[in-house]
Amino acid sequence: MTTATELLTAIKDVGTDPSRGGYSRHGFDAPELELREWFTAEAGSRGLDVEVDRNGNIWAWWGAPGPDALVTGSHLDSVPGGGAFDGPLGVVSSLAAVDVLKAKGFKPDRPLALMVFAEEEGGRFGLACLGSRLLTGATTAETALNLKDREGDTFADAVRAAGLDPARVGKDDEALARIGQFVELHVEQGRGLVDLNAPVGVATSILAHGRWRFRFTGEGNHAGATPMGSRRDPMLPASQLILSARWAASSVDGSRATVGRIEPIPGGTNVIASSVDVWLDARAPNDGRTRAVVERITAAAKQAARDEGCGLVVTEESYGDAVHFDSSLRDDLVAALGNVPALPTGAGHDAGILAEHVPTAMLFVRNPTGVSHAPAEHAEAADCEAGVEALAKVLAKLATKA
Amino acid sequence: MTTATELLTAIKDVGTDPSRGGYSRHGFDAPELELREWFTAEAGSRGLDVEVDRNGNIWAWWGAPGPDALVTGSHLDSVPGGGAFDGPLGVVSSLAAVDVLKAKGFKPDRPLALMVFAEEEGGRFGLACLGSRLLTGATTAETALNLKDREGDTFADAVRAAGLDPARVGKDDEALARIGQFVELHVEQGRGLVDLNAPVGVATSILAHGRWRFRFTGEGNHAGATPMGSRRDPMLPASQLILSARWAASSVDGSRATVGRIEPIPGGTNVIASSVDVWLDARAPNDGRTRAVVERITAAAKQAARDEGCGLVVTEESYGDAVHFDSSLRDDLVAALGNVPALPTGAGHDAGILAEHVPTAMLFVRNPTGVSHAPAEHAEAADCEAGVEALAKVLAKLATKA
Repeated sequence: MTTATELLTAIKDVGTDPSRGGYSRHGFDAPELELREWFTAEAGSRGLDVEVDRNGNIWAWWGAPGPDALVTGSHLDSVPGGGAFDGPLGVVSSLAAVDVLKAKGFKPDRPLALMVFAEEEGGRFGLACLGSRLLTGATTAETALNLKDREGDTFADAVRAAGLDPARVGKDDEALARIGQFVELHVEQGRGLVDLNAPVGVATSILAHGRWRFRFTGEGNHAGATPMGSRRDPMLPASQLILSARWAASSVDGSRATVGRIEPIPGGTNVIASSVDVWLDARAPNDGRTRAVVERITAAAKQAARDEGCGLVVTEESYGDAVHFDSSLRDDLVAALGNVPALPTGAGHDAGILAEHVPTAMLFVRNPTGVSHAPAEHAEAADCEAGVEALAKVLAKLATKA
Repeated sequence: MTTATELLTAIKDVGTDPSRGGYSRHGFDAPELELREWFTAEAGSRGLDVEVDRNGNIWAWWGAPGPDALVTGSHLDSVPGGGAFDGPLGVVSSLAAVDVLKAKGFKPDRPLALMVFAEEEGGRFGLACLGSRLLTGATTAETALNLKDREGDTFADAVRAAGLDPARVGKDDEALARIGQFVELHVEQGRGLVDLNAPVGVATSILAHGRWRFRFTGEGNHAGATPMGSRRDPMLPASQLILSARWAASSVDGSRATVGRIEPIPGGTNVIASSVDVWLDARAPNDGRTRAVVERITAAAKQAARDEGCGLVVTEESYGDAVHFDSSLRDDLVAALGNVPALPTGAGHDAGILAEHVPTAMLFVRNPTGVSHAPAEHAEAADCEAGVEALAKVLAKLATKA
């Protein structure tokens, strides 16, 4: 019997980021590969049979593989400079829940698997939930294989380096067909459970969510020798975009718009940039509101680019409509756990991708500050254990024939 | 006899930047070291004696070293993604001018040296004119040795790797005392000579110039899960700063303010930044106006940071007052060249640093578009040769006893 906290402690030194703080563990980079090996060993030591599917997702089977398998899991990668819980808490909780169930002598009446999804955050290749998107066909192999990381390496290079075959990447109906139901445990990314005074809750929905790249092009020139009146500086409309994102999201109910990444080219202090890439993350409770926010921001960015004599190209890098989790499965979870609250989230998850294909549910564990995607992300050890207990109860209920 | 264009062609493949375009050659990096070796060989083949001073500046002597030497030269490093002419044109023109003078059987009556200054652009360690600043004591060894590049390597590491002794870096009175007069040839960074219809001109002055880093600190958090009303996002005041720089510089006569470099931490698309570094380059015809521009921008940035609940720390990374070149030496240049125009520049140069210590002058070569610090930077071959002819005439006049 190992607790979730003990398991998190075992990996606490893997992928720490000395410059940003927190962790930088990205799909198939050295720290994430180390964590995958660690998970494989932990699953093996529990007698689970581990396999890696064509898209790099790991499956650890308790009993023979599907169909109608009950599957739980999350991811091991992080955002750049992320926290210790987003992803790993769901993975370690699945291992700890197996310990709880085995200690009770439980034997599942249906196939049961723990999963680790590849590149959930999109921190390396820019596309979130890449492993589940590929598995379900939400992203094509062609699109994925050509994605590049900041060093210019493609996803094809990365999977090849990890021992996978790029030619086999893509929609995997056989693997997907094995999943009967999917349950993901995750640290809450917000203060909903704090306000409700509950250690654990179940998810109702995920906001619609997309990423857009705005490329402003102007005229690179000398910062000292170019008079102010003869500049076409793409940093100006890029700044207007960032301010308009705040204004637009504040004007559409329940929506969020964020710019956390901006890259001027060439990026020298004494150089007027020739172009600037700005990435917009926008979300809202439904498609219409999300589109409305992005349209307002795009209109403001176009006007600002025009005012500066700059060009603008907008590229939608990813988009997913709002997810409403299966209400029948959610009722089963509430029945297994007693009086737990149900609440929505603004964060995307592999569970959101799978929800279009199989009955899917999520368990959230309380986060005392609500901070996530940052080193301050936290969950108390007692709440983590409450999460493991809840997951074990849910797995037991769902894997027991009536 | 080699032309400036032939010499530039010889180095056209060194340090090209495939992602930014143009050249990225920074102090003591691999391409700049390759260019230094190339210069050393070219100088040697002309019978010049090459030495490297304690700060990594290269001297190639025609005749015995100083005192009262006539020195000409420039630099081989570039901004990130810079052009082919800023720096190298002055270096290759000095070699070509020696060819012209030797072909005429000229023998200097005083020591004459060609110089290559180290890290003029500050593209690697953030401090422009580092080689001349160290030579003259404008920057202390302690400050310089601790400067870090983007990989975290210090200037001490870089000079050590280049075979220099960090303990000997710093003010070098002995080397400086050898310079009697200094003349730097440079591509013009503006359209002054285009408007005047002249291939070559002489410099009157350089704007006062400084670099400031603004570090905004907020609260890193999840881009999807954090409501707009509870954010402290440092990208917002950073954007206000960029817009205020345009406004402030437009309101102070002859001033310039630019943000070409911005680095959010952690820099993930789906992450509200926890902090953002923004570098401001500001210049004006005198100290008072430069300070006025920076004060207005700083006040706007402070207000914007306060409005967002963010912290702000402003660091002056470098500052130099306006330079007015020696008028007597400039008269000598005009006398040697006949009717050439005299004009100011907004760009900083090693000549500006040396001007505080020795009579200094600059020659500019026409730039058809005025673009500099960008791949489009250009000078026609005929104008480059006019520059070489002008430099040869100036050297001949100044190195001939009356």
